[in-house]
Amino acid sequence: MHKFRRAIFKFFDPTHTDSGASRVFNFGMLVLIFFNILAVVLETEESFYSRYRVYFYYFELFSVGVFTVEYILRLWTCTEQQKYKSPVLGRLQYALSPSMLIDLFSFLPFYIPLGGMDLRFIRAVRLFRLFRLFKMGRYSQSLNKLANVLKSKKEELVITLFSSVVLLILASSLMYFIERESQPELFGSIPKAMWWGAVTLTTVGYGDVYPMTLLGRIIGAFIAVLGIGLFALPAGIIASGFASELQKQKLEQNICPHCGQDINTTP
Amino acid sequence: MHKFRRAIFKFFDPTHTDSGASRVFNFGMLVLIFFNILAVVLETEESFYSRYRVYFYYFELFSVGVFTVEYILRLWTCTEQQKYKSPVLGRLQYALSPSMLIDLFSFLPFYIPLGGMDLRFIRAVRLFRLFRLFKMGRYSQSLNKLANVLKSKKEELVITLFSSVVLLILASSLMYFIERESQPELFGSIPKAMWWGAVTLTTVGYGDVYPMTLLGRIIGAFIAVLGIGLFALPAGIIASGFASELQKQKLEQNICPHCGQDINTTP
Amino acid sequence: MHKFRRAIFKFFDPTHTDSGASRVFNFGMLVLIFFNILAVVLETEESFYSRYRVYFYYFELFSVGVFTVEYILRLWTCTEQQKYKSPVLGRLQYALSPSMLIDLFSFLPFYIPLGGMDLRFIRAVRLFRLFRLFKMGRYSQSLNKLANVLKSKKEELVITLFSSVVLLILASSLMYFIERESQPELFGSIPKAMWWGAVTLTTVGYGDVYPMTLLGRIIGAFIAVLGIGLFALPAGIIASGFASELQKQKLEQNICPHCGQDINTTP
Amino acid sequence: MHKFRRAIFKFFDPTHTDSGASRVFNFGMLVLIFFNILAVVLETEESFYSRYRVYFYYFELFSVGVFTVEYILRLWTCTEQQKYKSPVLGRLQYALSPSMLIDLFSFLPFYIPLGGMDLRFIRAVRLFRLFRLFKMGRYSQSLNKLANVLKSKKEELVITLFSSVVLLILASSLMYFIERESQPELFGSIPKAMWWGAVTLTTVGYGDVYPMTLLGRIIGAFIAVLGIGLFALPAGIIASGFASELQKQKLEQNICPHCGQDINTTP
Repeated sequence: MHKFRRAIFKFFDPTHTDSGASRVFNFGMLVLIFFNILAVVLETEESFYSRYRVYFYYFELFSVGVFTVEYILRLWTCTEQQKYKSPVLGRLQYALSPSMLIDLFSFLPFYIPLGGMDLRFIRAVRLFRLFRLFKMGRYSQSLNKLANVLKSKKEELVITLFSSVVLLILASSLMYFIERESQPELFGSIPKAMWWGAVTLTTVGYGDVYPMTLLGRIIGAFIAVLGIGLFALPAGIIASGFASELQKQKLEQNICPHCGQDINTTP
Repeated sequence: MHKFRRAIFKFFDPTHTDSGASRVFNFGMLVLIFFNILAVVLETEESFYSRYRVYFYYFELFSVGVFTVEYILRLWTCTEQQKYKSPVLGRLQYALSPSMLIDLFSFLPFYIPLGGMDLRFIRAVRLFRLFRLFKMGRYSQSLNKLANVLKSKKEELVITLFSSVVLLILASSLMYFIERESQPELFGSIPKAMWWGAVTLTTVGYGDVYPMTLLGRIIGAFIAVLGIGLFALPAGIIASGFASELQKQKLEQNICPHCGQDINTTP
Repeated sequence: MHKFRRAIFKFFDPTHTDSGASRVFNFGMLVLIFFNILAVVLETEESFYSRYRVYFYYFELFSVGVFTVEYILRLWTCTEQQKYKSPVLGRLQYALSPSMLIDLFSFLPFYIPLGGMDLRFIRAVRLFRLFRLFKMGRYSQSLNKLANVLKSKKEELVITLFSSVVLLILASSLMYFIERESQPELFGSIPKAMWWGAVTLTTVGYGDVYPMTLLGRIIGAFIAVLGIGLFALPAGIIASGFASELQKQKLEQNICPHCGQDINTTP
Repeated sequence: MHKFRRAIFKFFDPTHTDSGASRVFNFGMLVLIFFNILAVVLETEESFYSRYRVYFYYFELFSVGVFTVEYILRLWTCTEQQKYKSPVLGRLQYALSPSMLIDLFSFLPFYIPLGGMDLRFIRAVRLFRLFRLFKMGRYSQSLNKLANVLKSKKEELVITLFSSVVLLILASSLMYFIERESQPELFGSIPKAMWWGAVTLTTVGYGDVYPMTLLGRIIGAFIAVLGIGLFALPAGIIASGFASELQKQKLEQNICPHCGQDINTTP
């Protein structure tokens, strides 16, 4: 029994990636989650849903089955880790870890009896399955790497976001002051003008709100030219984060092929 | 008395950040300023303001009280600094420093009697409180770091801005020449065409102005493809500024490979 | 005969670029393909096409002739390569290589008899000539370099694209939930809301779809501010790819500081 | 006379920037050109022009005077340079250099008698004064630095531009094929569809053209997500050009302050 539990634990463990079966399982789970999300997205298209309702139901049954079995097995085998050694307390502690909670919430709503419930509530519960997206974090290295880069550039991103909000408030207040009288419906208060500010500074520019007075256009153009640099910063910061992350990996084993010494140190 | 003054001075001094109380105070001021800005923003929403007018008033009273006390204490303790040693002249000099003027203007308008004044003037004075945003510079390291990066990349940003203006004028003049006759209201003069130029080159593209003639569309597409690179430059420049700022911090303990001494110190 | 075949083979071989005639031929083919594409583009303008129909036909005849002759010569001379030495099997193998298939498809449709065919089918076949664009890859170093950069940054680009899709689904689902009732036609299902999501997160912002409820605008602004960084990432990643590609070229004659040998060669 | 000519030559010479008068002159010329451009821009605003017609005329007289005198002095003193030593042939050669031709064309149209000419022609001649913008290149270091960066990144920019055009053609052809029937006026030919392509891929998104069919929206979203990276590349490339330009300047004199040796070489 112990051996079996250990085998299953190793199977789930992402650090034992040398096993081919483990890698196939990881990829399979990613695909399953992807189709789950696709199902949630397509179910909201009423005409499509009503036609294939049965298939959606069977697919949901299958998915919840897989997720439930995986959850139980993980809970059962977690005692193999030193950290969660205790059969009861360790398992409880493990069940309260973020990734296990995400796993739990991704299939639990299915077991809640919804008979006689409000239709809108049922629909909201259905949407709740989008939560399964976060399960992807367990299997996808891509999302983990992005998360690492975001973490390493946390400070710069916070600075940028904070400055962006300050700029947004200043720009919107200015525009409110200028355009208030000519377009009271769209610029009648600072919160209203902030919709213009957000749409302009992100350069989305839907075209539902824009300055119409001469002064408003001059100031608006100035704000746009000066401000978009700040709102476009995050992309540049994250890109340089990727670049330095990669460089770090490469510099780790930079050894001269002739003499076997590190090329980054001087003799 | 001297000891007390010195203690208060140290409390305000951002270089003595080892004190926990100092850090709590800094954070508290940031939060207070944030809610002040929120209040100014929400007050412009007439229906909301009229309902909670009393609370807005009490919050303003409290804020101005805190700001006034802080201002007086700062002015009183500034003589602890060698620079502003003289009790009268030193204090006057300190009061005229930019950050103290910002502090002063952030609460002074409250004490101006506005009874019998024009309502529009009162509203403008109310908006003036947005000025308190600039007080944030004193407590927020984020804004200071961004300011440092902008300063270090000043030259490139000036080059970019100057070139952008030159491009904007050229593009708008060209478009004015092409679209003048088919859309006299929107492209009837170069200043008018510059609204199109600003909206297009920043890629905001509201959709209120766009070329309609065949030639105008061809040239407009060319200008967009070639020009947006210039207007998007600031983001890239600032991002690389953040990257090199960080690198500089890391290189601080760089050692010369010839003599083994720190290259950043002078002998 | 052998000598002649070898001469033609060398003429086509891009690694023997020292020959001036070879370079002229390469450039000439690029120009010919460019005018072919231009022809396909202009032919779709009905009024223009019907007027110059004859010239379009003669140009097509000439182009197909050149492409056919080039194809036959390449097939004939490929046996000069060790890899495709066998007269029959080697040639067959060569004919099935991607670039030769592209070459074949770029002129083959011309020889298919279309008399009595559906006009729409003929039009689709005409558009098929855009396929000749891919022939450019053979002669243009620019496209090859871009392809190299994209390959070297493949991992980051996949991460970004994957995260973008995840964000798009989350943002659109949220917006569907909020705006569903006020704009059922535009936000009536998640797939419909994804059109808003794509248009907003890429900052295109046509203005045909945008949130109208207060909550929708607040959440929409948040999504835009936070999300555009992710969608703008590829540009930053590719740009840094170009930068490091160039650096690599410069580092090609790098010498190990310990033993003085080139670090890029293996002993 | 010779001494006087040499003094004037040195005054104009940008490499003798130690002279304060020279720097003042340079800055003055930049300001004069700026106001010239402003005049051209404002003159197109008919109501404004007709009111201040006289002032515009006097300013033009003054500017042309300054430009003419500068041109003559430059032509007279150019023989101080070894290159243009010959009094006649040297001066002719100098007069045909690009910057001297720009100078000439910036004031020559003023001397052309326009009496009895077509009003539209006169207007075009007036606009021609925008040409004076290019005179700025002589006095502005900003524009020169940008030009240097663009030159150093010429290859990457050409690659990007070329690939962008290829993508634009492919995307527009695809969209023409899909949307042709539902929106014949906007997508009725590939050149028409290219207006959509340019507006979308640059993320301007005016909103006058967008896909309306389901397939068109799906493909359009894909094109936007994948394509905007390419069109946003130039900004990233130019930004990294600025960064490496600056680094080059800094690395030129990187000497250890302790031992006086170059820190970039190994012992």
